Amino acid sequence: MTRQELVAQIRSKKSYLCVGLDTDPLKIPKHLQQQPDGVLLFNKAIIDATKDHCVSYKINTAFYESQGIKGWEIMQETLAYIPSTHFTIADAKRGDIGNTSSQYAKTFFEILPFDAVTVAPYMGEDSVRPFLEYKDKWTIVLGLTSNAGSFDFQRLSLAEQQGKQLYEQVLETTCKWGTPDNLMFVVGATRASDLADIRKMIPDHFLLVPGVGAQGGSLEEVSKYGLNTDAGLLVNASRAIIFADGGEDFAEAATKVAAGYQQEMAGYLQ
Amino acid sequence: MTRQELVAQIRSKKSYLCVGLDTDPLKIPKHLQQQPDGVLLFNKAIIDATKDHCVSYKINTAFYESQGIKGWEIMQETLAYIPSTHFTIADAKRGDIGNTSSQYAKTFFEILPFDAVTVAPYMGEDSVRPFLEYKDKWTIVLGLTSNAGSFDFQRLSLAEQQGKQLYEQVLETTCKWGTPDNLMFVVGATRASDLADIRKMIPDHFLLVPGVGAQGGSLEEVSKYGLNTDAGLLVNASRAIIFADGGEDFAEAATKVAAGYQQEMAGYLQ
Repeated sequence: MTRQELVAQIRSKKSYLCVGLDTDPLKIPKHLQQQPDGVLLFNKAIIDATKDHCVSYKINTAFYESQGIKGWEIMQETLAYIPSTHFTIADAKRGDIGNTSSQYAKTFFEILPFDAVTVAPYMGEDSVRPFLEYKDKWTIVLGLTSNAGSFDFQRLSLAEQQGKQLYEQVLETTCKWGTPDNLMFVVGATRASDLADIRKMIPDHFLLVPGVGAQGGSLEEVSKYGLNTDAGLLVNASRAIIFADGGEDFAEAATKVAAGYQQEMAGYLQ
Repeated sequence: MTRQELVAQIRSKKSYLCVGLDTDPLKIPKHLQQQPDGVLLFNKAIIDATKDHCVSYKINTAFYESQGIKGWEIMQETLAYIPSTHFTIADAKRGDIGNTSSQYAKTFFEILPFDAVTVAPYMGEDSVRPFLEYKDKWTIVLGLTSNAGSFDFQRLSLAEQQGKQLYEQVLETTCKWGTPDNLMFVVGATRASDLADIRKMIPDHFLLVPGVGAQGGSLEEVSKYGLNTDAGLLVNASRAIIFADGGEDFAEAATKVAAGYQQEMAGYLQ
């Protein structure tokens, strides 16, 4: 999907919501746990229930891999069920030396035809480039994550580079390898003031913002500091939407939460 | 596998060789490419040909994922074929927030019962801990890699921490989360002087050293600076062994190269 197409979707739906399909088989409603295709049925119901309110789905590959081969089949069928109007993200956080990253790029852009994949930056340029070589596909590099562990390394100050923190250097350096048309960054939602600084550094790039909802980030603050003229945000909520209700009414509950986010977003987009 | 068992294998075989099964389906001999189970047949032949000379096998998950579900089946069958005497590594470079890393740990320690998995450190403590919680399993954290991109971030100097480079801080911090009995580090083979410094910082931990062979590292230098009283090294060679000969004699060629490494290692172990 091109940037123009993504922006058109955001404008038409007045939404920059991404629904995270972190489908833990032990957390889906009991009546679905008893069915062999329970996770797939759950995902399809969630997609039906939320597709009018979001522009993107993010599949967290870990929750599928941990179910073995059956999990990969479900990931494949879930991806195929997502409407082609929606921007699809493999949240896989891959990254290795060049010949190996090429294989991961093939996995998530060809075998599983996602629009985007998340990539870890630690191994540097040759670990990221193979993903950027695909036309109309997106590489979403980890910048600043929203977990406690982000303080261990991402926020360390560097000796040169005017004392920048590591994650700022990652943003600056990675920007040289791609463009706002094929490169996004993961930026956690836990500190709005960081987002303001990041927007100054990279005014044009889309940011994938996890951490709203279950992880405690504020949609209002994220939108205030993160939106740009093309929206420039995909705000992800996973558990807050898909596990909004643990019983038979899970889909209705998911619609309600997703619609709530969308309406709030419509206000910020004006 | 416990550290004691691994060290016993190394002493008994006089080898700290790890054979990397980075099995690119387009690089296996032509007569195997034409068979539906060609990659599996190739892996089994390589294991038979090298198992007397190595103590470990490393499966590069990217080369299997990129073949889709069939690839995961082959990974599973390859793992099952490796003798239980050998230390098995999933070279997967995973790492995510805690609830997601737990799923990856389940994937590579339970669904696929590897002894060890490689983990990327960028997301910090809660992304690494779930792997360390498994008894008699190993977490191999990326320290300093051997690719060109390692200069982009890993070698940046930090403002505090006495000007340490990022990878040195990763080693120091990560050491607090695990012990030499469940934590190893990936340390590239391209600069022997770095290895001497790393040994001073972490005298006891095992190091997984890729980059010998096709990537140009020297086994002599790695051994000189990296060996400790328990050996403390697993030196990986992938392409140099498995693709030593591209024709029907690939297995004999693999034996010859692996045996050569083993004999050289026997000398350094004395």
